[in-house]
Amino acid sequence: MRTWDTVAIIGVGLIGGSIGLALRERKLARQIVGIGRRPESLEKALSLGCVSQISTSIAEGVKQAEIVVVCTPVESIAQQVAESAAAAPAGCVITDAGSTKTQLVADTEQALATKFPHHVPFVGSHPIAGREQSGPDAATADLLDHRVVVMTPTDRSDPAAVAAIEQFWTSLGADVVKMDPHSHDAIVALTSHLPHLVASALAATTPGSSESQPLIGNGWADTTRIAAGDPELWRQILLANRGPTLKALADFETVLSTWRHALESGDGQLVTALLKEGKSRRDAVGS
Amino acid sequence: MRTWDTVAIIGVGLIGGSIGLALRERKLARQIVGIGRRPESLEKALSLGCVSQISTSIAEGVKQAEIVVVCTPVESIAQQVAESAAAAPAGCVITDAGSTKTQLVADTEQALATKFPHHVPFVGSHPIAGREQSGPDAATADLLDHRVVVMTPTDRSDPAAVAAIEQFWTSLGADVVKMDPHSHDAIVALTSHLPHLVASALAATTPGSSESQPLIGNGWADTTRIAAGDPELWRQILLANRGPTLKALADFETVLSTWRHALESGDGQLVTALLKEGKSRRDAVGS
Repeated sequence: MRTWDTVAIIGVGLIGGSIGLALRERKLARQIVGIGRRPESLEKALSLGCVSQISTSIAEGVKQAEIVVVCTPVESIAQQVAESAAAAPAGCVITDAGSTKTQLVADTEQALATKFPHHVPFVGSHPIAGREQSGPDAATADLLDHRVVVMTPTDRSDPAAVAAIEQFWTSLGADVVKMDPHSHDAIVALTSHLPHLVASALAATTPGSSESQPLIGNGWADTTRIAAGDPELWRQILLANRGPTLKALADFETVLSTWRHALESGDGQLVTALLKEGKSRRDAVGS
Repeated sequence: MRTWDTVAIIGVGLIGGSIGLALRERKLARQIVGIGRRPESLEKALSLGCVSQISTSIAEGVKQAEIVVVCTPVESIAQQVAESAAAAPAGCVITDAGSTKTQLVADTEQALATKFPHHVPFVGSHPIAGREQSGPDAATADLLDHRVVVMTPTDRSDPAAVAAIEQFWTSLGADVVKMDPHSHDAIVALTSHLPHLVASALAATTPGSSESQPLIGNGWADTTRIAAGDPELWRQILLANRGPTLKALADFETVLSTWRHALESGDGQLVTALLKEGKSRRDAVGS
């Protein structure tokens, strides 16, 4: 198993903190530098053992790094990759943990190609390991264990950097899947962004009256759980991927209109067919 | 704590089986008669300890019962309550565990008033304790513990029967809430039936391709979990409550159309407002 002298993590929340904990538990890095804007968050991550050093400066924090992982909200990532590339040593490779990829990867590759000819390469990543909780308190050393990390290399990606980043995620116990940024965004619109939108809309549809509260059961709780996620993080994700998400919403609305027709006409066979289709897709995934 | 000599449970699946297990564990009944059509299901429930006797005949099974609980799919309940009333001894009270109430309670009260003047009273109930699993294998002695059971007495209900049924559910650890059948059905349309429809439609919208499967995470799994429920049970529930469910669906579609507008126009403030509204409703309920 390869180890690293120094890994820098920009943004030590749920994902960044979990990466730090996993690196420590697996003894994969001598130094883990946590980088962020807010000293209190960094102190928290340090006290939880997510990182071994902290810095509020990207330029300072990455200067010895062999790997930089940017785990901040999607709107911040491109800029922070560029700042990292400007300060990181030769041989360093950069990745991220953003939930959307098309625009971010295009912006980042463009910036690196034009501004940083000394070539610190970037390859986009997306760990499929979200939760409704956020922050370093929610971090766990096994968050990525046996989870999928999607990598989105392009024809501009450095093959050695792709291999290095793949090795990094694999070392943390993750299974790497590679696809182009467009395919990634179209799929997560359906598997992640539409479910978030739907869970939120469903929660908002439910009356908050004291009479209804006792009639809320496990089904509602499961179906709306992710609506408790951070609105600011999710605003950024949904806006960054709004084209594919609107397409996914249209697909969903088509199924809903069949449901409406089935109920309005009292068509039991159609209701059963719809329920069986949903069950079949759900059963194929498992718990 | 009051105890009963004989309780009859018609339908020993998840709910009926769990009632039997709770009665035994709490030593609340000397005899628990499991009644059903299929001998193999009854044998299973007997071997799991859910019931102490079994019968494929309602007339036989209820003849010593002080309480009859009908836990079959909603379309069967009215008929089985009538059969129970015809055979049960004086002093027996009947309730059910159906997820919809308006039509069922009206049909049942009508049948009992006209056909069974010797008056074995019925009061409708609905334990808010569903799961995606079904059958006696999924039954647990604590399924109703600290859960809500809605009772739906009407102005035709016998007050002594209401008190007896309330005592029964309370003895099993449940918290009883009373409301009229119409209010119950309007609320569960929003808290249970719409979530089921939405979870099913969301699962059906997700592509089953091998490329998408690895990108399915916990969020999708939570949001679609109840889509794995029994299609036949849910067809009956959704058709029995289709008016209120269509109204709930219309409310949901209104929220979705605001979402569509927010994404189409790239209105970040509106996206944030929608996410905050969903989070606020979700946070008010807790895990």
